[in-house]
Amino acid sequence: MILASIMLIFFGIILGFFASALLKKEIPLPPPLAASQEIRNFILQNQIKPPLEIPTTDEGWIVLREQVNKARAAAEGSSLEELSSRFFVAVERDEILGVPIFRLTPESVNTDGLFIHLHGGGRFFGGGDLAAQEGIIIASKVGIQVISVDYRVPPENPHPAAIEDIALVYKTLIDREPYRKYAIGGTSAGGELAVASIHYFKQMNYPIPDALYAGTPRTDATNMSDSLNVLKHIDPVLPTFDGFFDALARLNAGKTELDDPLISPIFGEFDMFPPAYLVTGTRDLLLSDTVRLHRKLREAGIEASLNVYDGMFHGGYLIAGESPEFHNVHNELREFLLKQFAN
Amino acid sequence: MILASIMLIFFGIILGFFASALLKKEIPLPPPLAASQEIRNFILQNQIKPPLEIPTTDEGWIVLREQVNKARAAAEGSSLEELSSRFFVAVERDEILGVPIFRLTPESVNTDGLFIHLHGGGRFFGGGDLAAQEGIIIASKVGIQVISVDYRVPPENPHPAAIEDIALVYKTLIDREPYRKYAIGGTSAGGELAVASIHYFKQMNYPIPDALYAGTPRTDATNMSDSLNVLKHIDPVLPTFDGFFDALARLNAGKTELDDPLISPIFGEFDMFPPAYLVTGTRDLLLSDTVRLHRKLREAGIEASLNVYDGMFHGGYLIAGESPEFHNVHNELREFLLKQFAN
Repeated sequence: MILASIMLIFFGIILGFFASALLKKEIPLPPPLAASQEIRNFILQNQIKPPLEIPTTDEGWIVLREQVNKARAAAEGSSLEELSSRFFVAVERDEILGVPIFRLTPESVNTDGLFIHLHGGGRFFGGGDLAAQEGIIIASKVGIQVISVDYRVPPENPHPAAIEDIALVYKTLIDREPYRKYAIGGTSAGGELAVASIHYFKQMNYPIPDALYAGTPRTDATNMSDSLNVLKHIDPVLPTFDGFFDALARLNAGKTELDDPLISPIFGEFDMFPPAYLVTGTRDLLLSDTVRLHRKLREAGIEASLNVYDGMFHGGYLIAGESPEFHNVHNELREFLLKQFAN
Repeated sequence: MILASIMLIFFGIILGFFASALLKKEIPLPPPLAASQEIRNFILQNQIKPPLEIPTTDEGWIVLREQVNKARAAAEGSSLEELSSRFFVAVERDEILGVPIFRLTPESVNTDGLFIHLHGGGRFFGGGDLAAQEGIIIASKVGIQVISVDYRVPPENPHPAAIEDIALVYKTLIDREPYRKYAIGGTSAGGELAVASIHYFKQMNYPIPDALYAGTPRTDATNMSDSLNVLKHIDPVLPTFDGFFDALARLNAGKTELDDPLISPIFGEFDMFPPAYLVTGTRDLLLSDTVRLHRKLREAGIEASLNVYDGMFHGGYLIAGESPEFHNVHNELREFLLKQFAN
């Protein structure tokens, strides 16, 4: 009798689950039809991964960082030697006043300007050889000399170490070659650090670079961006900032408040900023971070071009192979930089 | 005994619903924190409405259209007299070769250009006096003479009636005053019709206008846009295109295919297009329609400015009162038009 009752309740629970799913029409989200085959395939082939576990000690953070970097470095075709020969870019390891950098020189040069490239990876992952990967692509596709900065990261070196490294490299370069045109930028944390660095250059009364590139940048570590909620678990690369990435933001900030303009560059002042080229996608968890940066720039009277790709996720133009999005972003970046440098 | 069993199953179903909700963490979507108070309040105060029922006869479509238009006209502060005195714009009803138009002249004029304004409402709602509402705002905020075209709508007059009306007005105006600068645009179906009309002007070898304004335009009636899925039931103004709006698109198209560039302007060629100013929001069901239009224009080498407001829904800058979004959109539209007309 009790067994029969339990079975009936259990049967009811199953019915309840089904009815709930049916009522809400839980049809899986179709892939973006107007995105490229490469972006669609990536979405179809990459299930949303569970979030990383948050380390509880500095040692734990270091172990995680090295594991992830090692795995990325081992991915096929991603060594500097392979990228160098695939994109026809000479790679030279060097340092400037103790900060490790990569000098990246393309076979074919379209401008004598210089691009200061900052790697992505949440101001945490992506150092070492990985720091030059996107720089090689930019050097090749734009036809410009690039210096990728392998800035310091936490837990050993929280804020302001990264920005101080970038500023040291930048100041040294402009002092040596003040007649050159300079761009600064990168993807994800690279775009974030480029914007934060310009805030810092302004504080330090350094000359401002001539152009800014921010691809799908994080700009607000206080999580006011609407896409963090609307696109939660839709972006296959950055499914959510809850948990791991929030903890990482605090690790990065060190003793600095999260709404400090050098941590959350959206809260800075945007007067005197250089013309900017911005990229994001409609499935990018950082869609709102990017469009809010664009609004801030425009409202400060700065020339800024916002480019949003349908169905594209965080960093999709770099991650999903040589897609049309990959070529369009870099072709337009070239056009933008050549125009700015000609002024 | 049977009663007890039914009750147990029922109890189980309730448990199942709860468990399903808990497991999926169905927390209601928080309002967009970086949007204006006006946009946030609109989202908080406007529950998603059930879709309109699809009429089954032409008479049914006409009754629905007149009901909705009448309700909109009765809304507080929305009569032409009230808008005219609030925005200091003289309103004159007129016609050009049989097409009813509104001549809208602001008290203070910044340019001798002319803005051809096309009203929204799915190429169906929004005719009569409503056709001039947004035109009055543009006339006032930009400081430009506006002609709002009260184009024909279905079911009596499906495609190509609307575009023929617009083309007749435009051709007459440029023939009479060929030395003037012309802009064309509007919000929602107004932006859609502006883009489709330029495709038509190109077919007819008419001179191309000097500037295009498309606010949150529908550009693809074949539903390839990803935001139709990702933002379904998130945009409080346009919760979904399933059902009613799909049926409306077919009513509009008449005997023409949905992928015809005059019905879905995204499928046209964008060479020779004028510089364009585009607006959308991250909660706009037509986010993807708008960003795809921007990409098409840029890839054709056209100067086009994309502006995306965080948390803003379809037409939010017109609907949510005099919000910061309302002022920013129209201030930047003024700046854009004055710059284009000065060239």
